[in-house]
Amino acid sequence: MFKEKDIFQESFQTTNEIYQQFCELSKDLNPLHTNEPFAKGKGFLGKVMHGNILNAYLSYFIGECLPTKDVIIHSQSIQFKNPSYLGDNLNLTATITRVYESVNTVEFKFNFKNVENKIIAKGKIQIGLLK
Amino acid sequence: MFKEKDIFQESFQTTNEIYQQFCELSKDLNPLHTNEPFAKGKGFLGKVMHGNILNAYLSYFIGECLPTKDVIIHSQSIQFKNPSYLGDNLNLTATITRVYESVNTVEFKFNFKNVENKIIAKGKIQIGLLK
Repeated sequence: MFKEKDIFQESFQTTNEIYQQFCELSKDLNPLHTNEPFAKGKGFLGKVMHGNILNAYLSYFIGECLPTKDVIIHSQSIQFKNPSYLGDNLNLTATITRVYESVNTVEFKFNFKNVENKIIAKGKIQIGLLK
Repeated sequence: MFKEKDIFQESFQTTNEIYQQFCELSKDLNPLHTNEPFAKGKGFLGKVMHGNILNAYLSYFIGECLPTKDVIIHSQSIQFKNPSYLGDNLNLTATITRVYESVNTVEFKFNFKNVENKIIAKGKIQIGLLK
């Protein structure tokens, strides 16, 4: 069902609704995320979206977009390379890097790019297949 | 302001409100997270909470609980060691492992333990200090 080099693609938009939901959920109201003049004063174009919104997108990708629902995340890592902003459209590309059939685990590398093809974040996820 | 071996502790409870908010935000309604008989059939005690709820807690920790708000996450990694369930109280312990003053970065290791002192997840975060 999973083969090395298989590629998966999904698109996400960080709408105001998603941003507000993440603020409520996380209670992370750091001024970088909520105060536009503060963020601009630090050299950004506007309020920087929480990086962990991308981790919620990865939850959806693993939980809902694979050929089986019988999965669980074992580990994940992410590096934030460029800021993302309210309203950004982000394209996730995930590629299977290893399949360990004997222990029912699959490894992916992934990246999120914005519409200018700039890498916003990249990383790795290892999942387990549930029997 | 940041010294190696400094320890930070925070507590979080995965309430029904947080769980529902994460379901709405992420749209990850995988049956492991939403269907109790399915989760029990896979050997768990009940619906398994999304691991990425813990990453939202880390967003709060970094954004709101440090001695300065002038921070941004550079990278983070997490390994999920045991499932957590609805209503669980989780204790986060984060320890500074490295301070790189020349490049204004600080590294932490962290773990989340439940009230039985079982490790639910562990990992690392690197942050940058904004000027």
